[in-house]
Amino acid sequence: MENVEEEVGKVVEQARELQEAGASLLWKLSGEERSLRQKANSLDSSVRRIGSVINSLLSQKLLDPKLADKLEQDLERARCIAIDGDAAVFLPPKYQGRFLRMFLGPINVRASRKDVQLKVKEEYNSYRDRTAFLFLLFPLTLLTLRSWIWEGCLPAFPVQLYQAWLLFLYTGLALRENILRSNGSDIRPWWIYHHYCAMAMALVSITWEVRGQPNCTQKQRGVELFLQWAMMQGVAMLLQNRYQRQRLYTRIALGKANRMDVVWGETSGVDGQLWVLCPILFLMQAFEAYVGLLLLKTAFSGVVSEWQIIFCGILLVFMAVGNFINTVQTLNAKSRFKEKMKRTKSKQEL
Amino acid sequence: MENVEEEVGKVVEQARELQEAGASLLWKLSGEERSLRQKANSLDSSVRRIGSVINSLLSQKLLDPKLADKLEQDLERARCIAIDGDAAVFLPPKYQGRFLRMFLGPINVRASRKDVQLKVKEEYNSYRDRTAFLFLLFPLTLLTLRSWIWEGCLPAFPVQLYQAWLLFLYTGLALRENILRSNGSDIRPWWIYHHYCAMAMALVSITWEVRGQPNCTQKQRGVELFLQWAMMQGVAMLLQNRYQRQRLYTRIALGKANRMDVVWGETSGVDGQLWVLCPILFLMQAFEAYVGLLLLKTAFSGVVSEWQIIFCGILLVFMAVGNFINTVQTLNAKSRFKEKMKRTKSKQEL
Repeated sequence: MENVEEEVGKVVEQARELQEAGASLLWKLSGEERSLRQKANSLDSSVRRIGSVINSLLSQKLLDPKLADKLEQDLERARCIAIDGDAAVFLPPKYQGRFLRMFLGPINVRASRKDVQLKVKEEYNSYRDRTAFLFLLFPLTLLTLRSWIWEGCLPAFPVQLYQAWLLFLYTGLALRENILRSNGSDIRPWWIYHHYCAMAMALVSITWEVRGQPNCTQKQRGVELFLQWAMMQGVAMLLQNRYQRQRLYTRIALGKANRMDVVWGETSGVDGQLWVLCPILFLMQAFEAYVGLLLLKTAFSGVVSEWQIIFCGILLVFMAVGNFINTVQTLNAKSRFKEKMKRTKSKQEL
Repeated sequence: MENVEEEVGKVVEQARELQEAGASLLWKLSGEERSLRQKANSLDSSVRRIGSVINSLLSQKLLDPKLADKLEQDLERARCIAIDGDAAVFLPPKYQGRFLRMFLGPINVRASRKDVQLKVKEEYNSYRDRTAFLFLLFPLTLLTLRSWIWEGCLPAFPVQLYQAWLLFLYTGLALRENILRSNGSDIRPWWIYHHYCAMAMALVSITWEVRGQPNCTQKQRGVELFLQWAMMQGVAMLLQNRYQRQRLYTRIALGKANRMDVVWGETSGVDGQLWVLCPILFLMQAFEAYVGLLLLKTAFSGVVSEWQIIFCGILLVFMAVGNFINTVQTLNAKSRFKEKMKRTKSKQEL
């Protein structure tokens, strides 16, 4: 009995020690974090100041353009180390989107280590892979059953179930992409806005009544086109995922290489695939716009004239245009960057 | 010009230093975390082992019940320090729900400091406050406009807009509550399941066609009842928030007091309010079940016989029963705890 009392006393003592060790670690950590943050801030302002000095010297022709090029590259490398390196996880997050705050409140979604960040990205890719199959399978099943069992006339429930799944999927993707962005991913904002639009469309199309007989084929023309487009998007998603995954593997393989090296490595690795991907992307965007315009035509010709059809039509055209512009911009940026890299490389060889 | 080159060199050097400082801090941190985790694990197993030893001694009547009571309280305090104290933030999270993984992927949503955790909770409460007003205002507006402008017949769009808002709201609440739970909140799982049910109901009721003339009043009886119930829930939410907030303030005021102290403080502080809150909660649960049963009656009497009505009816009854059981259990736990505290206190006074 004495023994038990003693043991309880020991446990209480251990708990107190643990508490103290935790508190002192937190205290030390917050001190070191503060000092790192100060260093990072001063580095950031130095980089900016020197950058503007170089620019003003260049414009006054007091600096050799080649030297300026080299100095700017050095500055960029310093900036990348500060943003991308091991110290980055201790800095306050730069980006915490309104979307995340709206759903999650003010929590910190940044991973505390570089390898965890890469794991989050890898999981995002495998999530996209899994959903891409469903993306293909779901509309395929609906269209097959339609001509096979349902005699050309889709019942409302499976279509609404599909649209509810789309809503869930796009919400998840938008949340995950915002989290990736907080973790330093340089995903183009448009692709996230695109998913917001897709969320809105899924929500609206749930309320969109799927009408039956008579004239089922005519009334359901919009749904049919939408399903066909969704299937195409599934194929494009699978291809895109392959491409993205290869980019990430390059990044992991290069390990602690900085951001610039990685971009260089990735562009050289998957060039071939990009030129398979592009035509499919453009074709899909054209089809997206076509479906949107057809929906608008259906609405204004008076066959079905619900506001949902008009809304979805406008949204599809808007998304197609936005996708097109952003794909072109991405390609431009990539080729410009490659051009620059080639120039630097040939200079070094000289 | 030389000056600029020198400065760039200095900045690159600074960046490298920052990178090294960050890496070494991470390295130290992971070592200390590992040691804290080992200590916490050994503490946890000791607490469990001694607890079972005390129980077996008690059952063999080898231990005085009063002493056993005291020892168990000490053990509980040790356990609370380990779970709730400053060391807790370094331990691996115990709970990471499937719901969070489904929407967010495998990210860490735990706040790294106790004060941040309390801030997250405070923000959750103020979010509930803001939404409680909307919860009251939205259905009130719909019902007022219905009898004022729409001549007793609700149009579909505003009702669907309201239901889409509900879907967004419940998704946000469910996500936030899961995050709170990961942060060590002891929220009862039922309240989270309740919000999953509410999400399902909002989603289903979006697809629920809001019919117009003729016989509008009869066909929209379900919607009307639902809106009235929602208004009542708004009032209850406001009252609940007041209660919860006072609990949290007590907790903050007590500062580093452990969990047991806090529970004691909170129960004594807001006793009066709990007895205002309870009848309202029970009344609301009864009304919820009543609305559910009425929906089922409408469906089976054949006025409106969509599957959505049956689904919502069953869900409402299920939620009402679950709410009732969980409210009673919470009250029981509270009064049992108070009883125990009184006993301990009077013993101490003797």
